Amino acid sequence: MPTNSEAKVNPTANRVAVMGAGAVGSYFGGMLARAGVPVTMIARGAYVEAVRRNKLFLDTVTFQERVAVEVSSDPSAVRGAHIVLFCVKGQDNEEAARAIAPHLAAGAIVVSLQNGVDNVERIRAAAGIDALPAVVYVAAAMPEPGHVKHSGRGDLVVGEFAGRSAAAEMQPPRAEQIAALFASANVPCRLAADILGDMWQKFIGNCGANAISAIAQMSYGDIVRYEEARNLMIRVVEECIAVAGAAGVRAPGPGFSEKWLANLAAFGGAFASTAQDLARGKRTEIESLNGYIVRRGAELGVATPNNFALYALVRLLEEKAASEQQARPAGAAQ
Amino acid sequence: MPTNSEAKVNPTANRVAVMGAGAVGSYFGGMLARAGVPVTMIARGAYVEAVRRNKLFLDTVTFQERVAVEVSSDPSAVRGAHIVLFCVKGQDNEEAARAIAPHLAAGAIVVSLQNGVDNVERIRAAAGIDALPAVVYVAAAMPEPGHVKHSGRGDLVVGEFAGRSAAAEMQPPRAEQIAALFASANVPCRLAADILGDMWQKFIGNCGANAISAIAQMSYGDIVRYEEARNLMIRVVEECIAVAGAAGVRAPGPGFSEKWLANLAAFGGAFASTAQDLARGKRTEIESLNGYIVRRGAELGVATPNNFALYALVRLLEEKAASEQQARPAGAAQ
Repeated sequence: MPTNSEAKVNPTANRVAVMGAGAVGSYFGGMLARAGVPVTMIARGAYVEAVRRNKLFLDTVTFQERVAVEVSSDPSAVRGAHIVLFCVKGQDNEEAARAIAPHLAAGAIVVSLQNGVDNVERIRAAAGIDALPAVVYVAAAMPEPGHVKHSGRGDLVVGEFAGRSAAAEMQPPRAEQIAALFASANVPCRLAADILGDMWQKFIGNCGANAISAIAQMSYGDIVRYEEARNLMIRVVEECIAVAGAAGVRAPGPGFSEKWLANLAAFGGAFASTAQDLARGKRTEIESLNGYIVRRGAELGVATPNNFALYALVRLLEEKAASEQQARPAGAAQ
Repeated sequence: MPTNSEAKVNPTANRVAVMGAGAVGSYFGGMLARAGVPVTMIARGAYVEAVRRNKLFLDTVTFQERVAVEVSSDPSAVRGAHIVLFCVKGQDNEEAARAIAPHLAAGAIVVSLQNGVDNVERIRAAAGIDALPAVVYVAAAMPEPGHVKHSGRGDLVVGEFAGRSAAAEMQPPRAEQIAALFASANVPCRLAADILGDMWQKFIGNCGANAISAIAQMSYGDIVRYEEARNLMIRVVEECIAVAGAAGVRAPGPGFSEKWLANLAAFGGAFASTAQDLARGKRTEIESLNGYIVRRGAELGVATPNNFALYALVRLLEEKAASEQQARPAGAAQ
C-alpha cells in the first residue's frame, strides 16, 4: 500500500469491502469497482441475489452501467480488504462494527461514510475500531435491490479528527490515501483540515430538512416553497448551531440558513433518506439526527424544542409503521 | 321567550337555527329537534339534499334515529330563529358572521359552539354580533352528509365572559336560558362562573392532541401509548399553560397533563377533527389552535417552539393536500 500522499494510486492494488451496501455504499463502492478496484459488497439476501444475477446497476445522472462486484451477506467478507467503507445506518453501528471487527486485516482502513456526527465514536466504543470520518454528499436511492438511482453530486470529504492519539498519529496518512483512491475513480474527495466542522455543517442541514421531509413525505424542493416550513427549518438549524457552539465545534456562520435553503430549493424532487425509510416502514436514522441534537443539547444545557418535536413525531411515525406491519398477515409484501 | 332562569322551558317555544351544520352542529341541533324544537340546519348543498331526502340521521352510542329538521344552504335562514348555534370552523368565522348578521332577529341569541378561545371576539369584530361562548365536549364525525356518527360524550358548558358591557348585562340571562333549553333535550349543559377558564382548559387539550393526531393520522388512544409522543404532548400543553398564565386566564393546575393523558387514553379510537380535515384535504382549524398559541405567545413574550413546530407541519400538510387536489384532473372525486 502507498504510504505517501503524493504517491500515484494503482486502483487494483487496493481491495475494498463495503459494509452495509445501501444506496450510498453501492454508489461509492460501485464507482471504485468501475475504476477497476476489486470490491466486495456486504448486504442482505435480496441484494446479494440480485447483484449475483445482474451485477450492480449504476444508474447515474451521467451514465448507466452494470458493474461487476463480489457480494456476500456475511460480515466476515471484509477479510482481506485493505479498505472498508462502513455504510450502515446509524442505528446499526454497534452490531455491524462488532460483526466485522474479528475479521479486519491488520492495517485495514475503515472509513465511515455515514450521516451523523457520532458514528466514529460509537464504532470505537462498540468494537475498538478507529474509523476515519468522512462527509458524504450524494443524492442516491435504491428503488430495487442492486439498482442504484443516483440523482446528484457524489463527492466526499475526509480528514482526521484533531486530537487523535499519538499512536494513531504514527500511522501512514490514511485520509490522503483514501482521497487519492477515490480521485483515481473520478469521485471528488476533498481533504478537510477540520473534518468535525465539516461533518456538523452537513449534519445540521440534515437535521433541518430530513425529519420534515419524512413527516410530510415531501421533497426538499416542495417543502421550501412554504413559509412556515422554512421558518421551522431555520429554527431547527439555529438550535443545532447553538448545540455545536456549546460543544466547541466550528459552527456555520451567519447567513448559513439562507444559503442552505437556496441550495435545498435547487435539489428539487429529492426526498430525504429518512423519508424513504419511513415510507418503507423501516427504522430511520432519527436517533443520529434530531435525536442526537436533543440528547447533546440536554447534556450541554441548550434548549432544542423544535428538534425535539421533529424527533418525537418521527419516532411516533416509526412506531405506527411498525405496528401496521405487524398487523399484516404473514407473507404479505413489505 | 322565558326571561327568568327558573322558568320551565317549553321546547317548541324556541326556533333554533344551526349555522354550519357539521358533526357538532348537527349533533346538538339534532338533539334539540328530537326533543321537539323546530330546527333549521344551514349547510352546503350535499348535506341539504341528503337531509331533505332522508332526514338527519343521528347515529349515537345510545340510539339511532332519523330526525326531521328544516335545511337550507342560505345563511338568511337564520331569520326568525330565537337561538342560533354558530358551529362553523374557526377559519370561516368572519364570513359566516357577516352572512347571518343582516338576518338575525332582534334579541336572537347566538351561541358559539366551536373549538378555540377567540371565536366570540372575532365574531364581534367581523359583524358586531355578541355571541355567547360555550365549551363543547363531544366525539362526533360525519362520515357522509346528513349522517352524524356520535362516539362519546355530548355535553356543553355555557357562561358569560366576565367584564361584559353594562348594556349587555341589562339583557335577560341568556346562559341560563340556553342551559335550560339543552337540559330539556337531555343534553347536559353546565353553567360556568368562569367560562374563559373552562374554554382554555378544553382548548389546551386540543392544542396538545389534535395536531399530533393530524400529522400522524393516529387516534388519541394510539398516540398516547408512545413515550416520545406523550412527552411532546406534555411540552405543548405546558407552553399553552404558560400563555394562559401570561394572558391572565385561569390556567389548569398541577397534575393537569397526567389526568388529561389518562383521559385521552380512554378515548381509544377517536381521531381529532383536525386529523379528519387533513385526511380529506380540507383546511383545518390549526390557526385557531396551535397557531393561536404561537401568535398569542409572541404578543405576550412566551416562547412556544413546540406549538410552532406542530403548527408549521400542519400548515405544510394542508398545502401539500391542496396542491395534490389541484393536480387532480377536473371531475375527479374529492
